[in-house]
Amino acid sequence: MIMINSVTILDYIGTFAFAISGIRLAALKKFDWFGAYVVGLVTAIGGGTMRDVLLNTTPFWMHQPSYLICTALALFSVILLGNHIIRFKHTFFIFDTIGLGLFVVVGINKTLEFGFPVWVAIFMGTLTGSAGGVIRDILINEVPLIFHKEIYAMACVLGGLIYWGCYYFGLEPAITQILSASGVILARFLAVKYKIALPQLRNIN
Amino acid sequence: MIMINSVTILDYIGTFAFAISGIRLAALKKFDWFGAYVVGLVTAIGGGTMRDVLLNTTPFWMHQPSYLICTALALFSVILLGNHIIRFKHTFFIFDTIGLGLFVVVGINKTLEFGFPVWVAIFMGTLTGSAGGVIRDILINEVPLIFHKEIYAMACVLGGLIYWGCYYFGLEPAITQILSASGVILARFLAVKYKIALPQLRNIN
Amino acid sequence: MIMINSVTILDYIGTFAFAISGIRLAALKKFDWFGAYVVGLVTAIGGGTMRDVLLNTTPFWMHQPSYLICTALALFSVILLGNHIIRFKHTFFIFDTIGLGLFVVVGINKTLEFGFPVWVAIFMGTLTGSAGGVIRDILINEVPLIFHKEIYAMACVLGGLIYWGCYYFGLEPAITQILSASGVILARFLAVKYKIALPQLRNIN
Repeated sequence: MIMINSVTILDYIGTFAFAISGIRLAALKKFDWFGAYVVGLVTAIGGGTMRDVLLNTTPFWMHQPSYLICTALALFSVILLGNHIIRFKHTFFIFDTIGLGLFVVVGINKTLEFGFPVWVAIFMGTLTGSAGGVIRDILINEVPLIFHKEIYAMACVLGGLIYWGCYYFGLEPAITQILSASGVILARFLAVKYKIALPQLRNIN
Repeated sequence: MIMINSVTILDYIGTFAFAISGIRLAALKKFDWFGAYVVGLVTAIGGGTMRDVLLNTTPFWMHQPSYLICTALALFSVILLGNHIIRFKHTFFIFDTIGLGLFVVVGINKTLEFGFPVWVAIFMGTLTGSAGGVIRDILINEVPLIFHKEIYAMACVLGGLIYWGCYYFGLEPAITQILSASGVILARFLAVKYKIALPQLRNIN
Repeated sequence: MIMINSVTILDYIGTFAFAISGIRLAALKKFDWFGAYVVGLVTAIGGGTMRDVLLNTTPFWMHQPSYLICTALALFSVILLGNHIIRFKHTFFIFDTIGLGLFVVVGINKTLEFGFPVWVAIFMGTLTGSAGGVIRDILINEVPLIFHKEIYAMACVLGGLIYWGCYYFGLEPAITQILSASGVILARFLAVKYKIALPQLRNIN
């Protein structure tokens, strides 16, 4: 049974926002509705699917249709709203970032539940949060955005390190998870606001 | 033991046709023989492999070498026939479409056998039929064709819905499978003949 | 516990060299440090990860952090050495080729241990050696190098056939593995030195 609690609601909001980000890029590439749906879906569930494949377990979205439905709703919104959707740009950015914080923590929790050490969990949290966007960019035939712009994945890593710290000092799981997700969210907001970026590699070829 | 029955023959024909479609695109990109083999193989077995990885089972082609051999035969045909292969274009289109119908039904059957609900099976049938072509297009560094042209994947979804309907009304498995595969094949023929396509998304960025 | 023996040392050297090859291409594409790390990591562990996913087992690098650390060391080397790294070009080529030989044999061994027949093992050995470079090229949005240049994967296949021959004639495992790895290494050196390449497919479209 699906528990409709606050985490579930955040999960749906995050899925919806991730899907919107994929569908907008698909529109830019003149994809048809099916193509847009696939790109939106892959953005939303790609990271968690890669995590579950590496953990050697059935992908999370195969247990209940809500993630496929969320993506369909995102597609319908984009089709119906059209150009008006650009007005909600800031709202989507906030949803997207909240989703990121949640996905990272979900990825860490699940990996620890499978008995892996903390460094694998931090890896999987980062993968859960950022691999969907990488697969999205591969599908639209662009160089993945997070490899040369924005501190997106580093926010995930930071959230993972906060989780590790809290875990090490024996904090309550609920507090650990809230602090970790907040770290991800805050790091991304600050990075975007102050245009903080990692240095590029010098061309050494 | 390998049963040489009509389904097996159709399976080999479909594999061969899918491999040819990959090898032709590889030739366009001036790939060498090895590259062409890989692109052909991925086109033929990529969808079923993704399905089996998601179902958390050993990929189907690891149980017997026939799929690797079929792809090798497709490569030799292209090397030997060269430009003459273009004459068989319509034949390949027919084989390719029959293969598509079969692969969708195989994907649905296998997913149901693993105990998943029908909506997962429809998803997996569509994946089995169309993901190989997506990976092929990623390997040749093009935007996946099925995201902006042709009702290819929608034919798979339609076949899945027909399967669902037959299943719901308790039809015989054999009849269910034949109707479902026929639906895929017919939908694709009609879509190509009458140039039916899904609407594109308006650019909303 | 990690055994520091000669195979482990070769494994680290190979991982380091594969990671360097990815990081250098990432630098050419102006990736930031994170992007470079990911591309380096994927080049080093991508092939083995795909093999382990297909074998339906936990990826090898999730058991101990040494592969992630090796890649971090490769990134730091590139950042610190900058342009001077080009001086070690020949050394890296040698390390890379030794790594290739080792990875192929490791892939074959592991697949046989899982009870698969030799043809699957040869496939997996080739995948272990060459799939990381393919994923690397997808991430930097280029057509995979090994599909149109160099006998890279064919050296892996040759090593696999040597393994098969030795195995068939009942040679000692240690000798089989050394001969197979040497075959890979020698084939690649000769192919690069004498510019041996597979024929391209004629354009038949």
